[in-house]
Amino acid sequence: MSKRTRTTQTTVGKYLITRLRQAGLGHVFGIPGDYVLKFYDLLVASPIEVVGTCTEAGAAFATDAYARVAGLGCCCVTYCVGGLNTLNAVAGAYAEKSPVIVISGAPGLDERRRTPLLHHRVRDFATQRAIFEKVTVASVALEDPKAAPDQIDETIAACLRHKRPVYIELPRDVVDLKCAAPRRLRTEPEVSDMEVLAEALVEALGMLGAAKRPAILAGVEIHRFGLQNNLLDLVERSGFPIATTLLGKSIINELHPQHLGIYEGAMGREDVRRTIERADCVLILGAFMTDINLGIYTADLDIRRTINATSERVAIKHHSFSDIELRDFIEGLAARVKPRRKKKAAKPRTPRTFRARKGQAITVKRFFRRLETFLEANMGVVADVGDCLFGAADLTIPQRTEFLSPAYYTSMGFAVPAALGVQKANPELRPIVIVGDGAFQMTGLELSTIARQGLNPIVFVLNNKGYTTERFINEGPYNDILEWQYHRLPELFGPGRGFEVRTEDELEAALAATRVDTGKYSIVNVHLDKMDRSDALARLGQRLSEQGGHAKRS
Amino acid sequence: MSKRTRTTQTTVGKYLITRLRQAGLGHVFGIPGDYVLKFYDLLVASPIEVVGTCTEAGAAFATDAYARVAGLGCCCVTYCVGGLNTLNAVAGAYAEKSPVIVISGAPGLDERRRTPLLHHRVRDFATQRAIFEKVTVASVALEDPKAAPDQIDETIAACLRHKRPVYIELPRDVVDLKCAAPRRLRTEPEVSDMEVLAEALVEALGMLGAAKRPAILAGVEIHRFGLQNNLLDLVERSGFPIATTLLGKSIINELHPQHLGIYEGAMGREDVRRTIERADCVLILGAFMTDINLGIYTADLDIRRTINATSERVAIKHHSFSDIELRDFIEGLAARVKPRRKKKAAKPRTPRTFRARKGQAITVKRFFRRLETFLEANMGVVADVGDCLFGAADLTIPQRTEFLSPAYYTSMGFAVPAALGVQKANPELRPIVIVGDGAFQMTGLELSTIARQGLNPIVFVLNNKGYTTERFINEGPYNDILEWQYHRLPELFGPGRGFEVRTEDELEAALAATRVDTGKYSIVNVHLDKMDRSDALARLGQRLSEQGGHAKRS
Repeated sequence: MSKRTRTTQTTVGKYLITRLRQAGLGHVFGIPGDYVLKFYDLLVASPIEVVGTCTEAGAAFATDAYARVAGLGCCCVTYCVGGLNTLNAVAGAYAEKSPVIVISGAPGLDERRRTPLLHHRVRDFATQRAIFEKVTVASVALEDPKAAPDQIDETIAACLRHKRPVYIELPRDVVDLKCAAPRRLRTEPEVSDMEVLAEALVEALGMLGAAKRPAILAGVEIHRFGLQNNLLDLVERSGFPIATTLLGKSIINELHPQHLGIYEGAMGREDVRRTIERADCVLILGAFMTDINLGIYTADLDIRRTINATSERVAIKHHSFSDIELRDFIEGLAARVKPRRKKKAAKPRTPRTFRARKGQAITVKRFFRRLETFLEANMGVVADVGDCLFGAADLTIPQRTEFLSPAYYTSMGFAVPAALGVQKANPELRPIVIVGDGAFQMTGLELSTIARQGLNPIVFVLNNKGYTTERFINEGPYNDILEWQYHRLPELFGPGRGFEVRTEDELEAALAATRVDTGKYSIVNVHLDKMDRSDALARLGQRLSEQGGHAKRS
Repeated sequence: MSKRTRTTQTTVGKYLITRLRQAGLGHVFGIPGDYVLKFYDLLVASPIEVVGTCTEAGAAFATDAYARVAGLGCCCVTYCVGGLNTLNAVAGAYAEKSPVIVISGAPGLDERRRTPLLHHRVRDFATQRAIFEKVTVASVALEDPKAAPDQIDETIAACLRHKRPVYIELPRDVVDLKCAAPRRLRTEPEVSDMEVLAEALVEALGMLGAAKRPAILAGVEIHRFGLQNNLLDLVERSGFPIATTLLGKSIINELHPQHLGIYEGAMGREDVRRTIERADCVLILGAFMTDINLGIYTADLDIRRTINATSERVAIKHHSFSDIELRDFIEGLAARVKPRRKKKAAKPRTPRTFRARKGQAITVKRFFRRLETFLEANMGVVADVGDCLFGAADLTIPQRTEFLSPAYYTSMGFAVPAALGVQKANPELRPIVIVGDGAFQMTGLELSTIARQGLNPIVFVLNNKGYTTERFINEGPYNDILEWQYHRLPELFGPGRGFEVRTEDELEAALAATRVDTGKYSIVNVHLDKMDRSDALARLGQRLSEQGGHAKRS
């Protein structure tokens, strides 16, 4: 009937793989199961590499990180017992805008009719899809081979457009059914409404031109939509100082002379806070105004002085504009902004230096100080949640280094599997993982997958014997965990080096050894006092107590 | 206005704890997080013991197992990053009818209004609850302290009535709000419609009376609704032979002279299959007719010869009756069934014996043979998924031994955390865990929690170097996993014994050592050939190939 039925044919499974390849996908993370084995066979026969993990949760975190680095990620799992284990990580990808495709196998349509109580079923055969609808921007069950090509195209397009997860369910008896072969992809670039754009630009440029102390605050969407160069252009043409949010950390070379640091209310450095909050016009670009980004309610930004542009809308003061592409807005500003006179001696800053003190017990603060001097351009920093994240906020990240962290959704256990995803996406990047002991116990065993894949991250377990961030909120026995001999895990998994570190010189020795041993992963068990904490966490605590505590704020 | 407002007051958090205690709950499994810390403080101050796990998935599996043994289980987690990690295990509890309460912390109602982008949020504040609605029989967010007492009572009642999970969400600023104190619980026993019951009993007794070769097939609801003694009474009064489903394994002493074994189509023993399928009337009691229970479509039961009673309805041939309590139906049959003449020499059967062969490599078949003679009345068997489960089906379980397995939902990774739940529910029971290496890599690290709690299960890792059950469906590189030195985990976690076993005499030595060392857990790394399999899996394969394979059945 349509033109499609007259074209060459393929199968639904092969069609899906072709489209994934065309979208640039090189790897799929997951664990097989009987309902998805047929599709796994197709994947194995394709140029896509299948990376088997220990858990589906690990696969999904790896996929999220892979997507953040490569622009698209995909995990492939079996029905319910596989898919539902990915849900938390997929929810995190939704919250933080990471373009993840979840492919789930499913019982065959034919067998469903014959035996309603098939294994892995929860309530009915629509249950898993209904659940994924809540954490994705598009979800589809490929139950009709005729409709499948369009469904696949639309779903992948939604993932790429919104930079958010989508869900594709593939019943096992549909994998090999015939469908139309892939046609040339219609790529419709998103365009701004030029009239709206012009109006918004005039107003924004007017505010910025009139401002005496303008500043830029940039966030994670700059990274997701690949606008780092556009941002840099605007920064350098305008001469405005720039801070980033925690989630957007490293979207600009942090040694750049105009870069201030991370803005996160009272949790961040005081000088950054002052510059942003005293600015008479703050240009916010691609940032989520989350509680963590804003230092747990301690940020103080007057909306009447802000221009706030995201991928979804541009807001100036209390009004907002739709149909403006973030890229167009940033480029429009860069083209016409009135340059501020630059300070004379604006030279690139140099990283701080560090000298280890022999026999001195290592602290959180000194650990991060040391780490900063250790970082090289070919490294990527992956921070887990808790004081790992707060402490990492003060790390100066040099150009070309990626910084990844679940700084809004803040799901513990992100970092180790994320390192797997980062390095599969970019083998040139050596991941530096900073993870607490509590988070490590959740997903750290994906170090096994890292060992199997022959990757070489350096994993620092900040071993403070429990959930230390929580100790500063409510202390109780529930914040204690069992202490593992983390550094001995390579004895269980094979090639890899373990280090146990209690003092600054032991840290030096471990760093020296692991820096040159680039052929394998390392795990460094960094013993810390259970009540030690980063400067950022200390600042937050002090500020909250000055204000009479969190509960009294309104 | 109502009487309630005039009574003594308590707080919403304390009310919830009081009701949990009144329902008999002694332990809660989980991991804290800031949105649930206040409630954790109340738990710690209560007689309920909080059992911290490494992961929320582990907490939820432990809760499910605890519920199966104790009649009610509860896990308590933080918002989304905690709750969503429990979803797979909770879905399994739904599928297999296990009474699990999930309590999730949530952002305060007040802070939601002030800062919409609170950490851990996915799409909106209703997202997590909407997801849990799909896998529970009742879900509620306690957002109004006036309504909370009734909401709590109704939700817990639904859990106990349906033996299925429920979800309770508790915003952190509601925990300490005042509400009415608990009133005396109205316990309304479920009752049958006596007219319907009488009609069904007459017809069923007529069929059974007319049958020459009647048989009973009993399932897991006998366990969930505590009907083991009622069933035994019916079995002994009637003289009928009885088989159980795999999910219902051990609901009757398997050495009982009338007990045949597990019925699971071609996967089960041929003599059991013959007796059930050649019976001229099969009385099915509390069984789920699932694909695994029925041996992956190989079962052959003629519906015209069946009476099929569950907690939901009684079906005779092609018609069904509502409003009949399973207990009343079984008791009614027992009271009036015409006893069959018992065979003369019906003595209790004795377990098989085993003699180890020195230097002989251990096989799946010989492992299970040996295990059977090892079991004692104070042990509980927890089987994970795959050939662990199929092999365990042939184990004869003596009276008073619990057998637990996710035999329908079949989620890998159930067994190790389930052992934690089993032993917290019944400290007298020493769990015998049978788990594959693939499943162990998913959740086996909860052995850390077992170590911390000082429990003493014996964990057998059937180490066949990958997903062996899948190798018999589709072999591919995705079925391989990295081999760990499983027996060395006690070196990481502390007290516990590790054994590496390759031969029958090494197994003997490990069993002898672990049997007497009752003060700590053991982990036994049982090396198996990667293509070795149980008798049950071999039988299924043979039968399917005789029938021309699975795909050709209709």
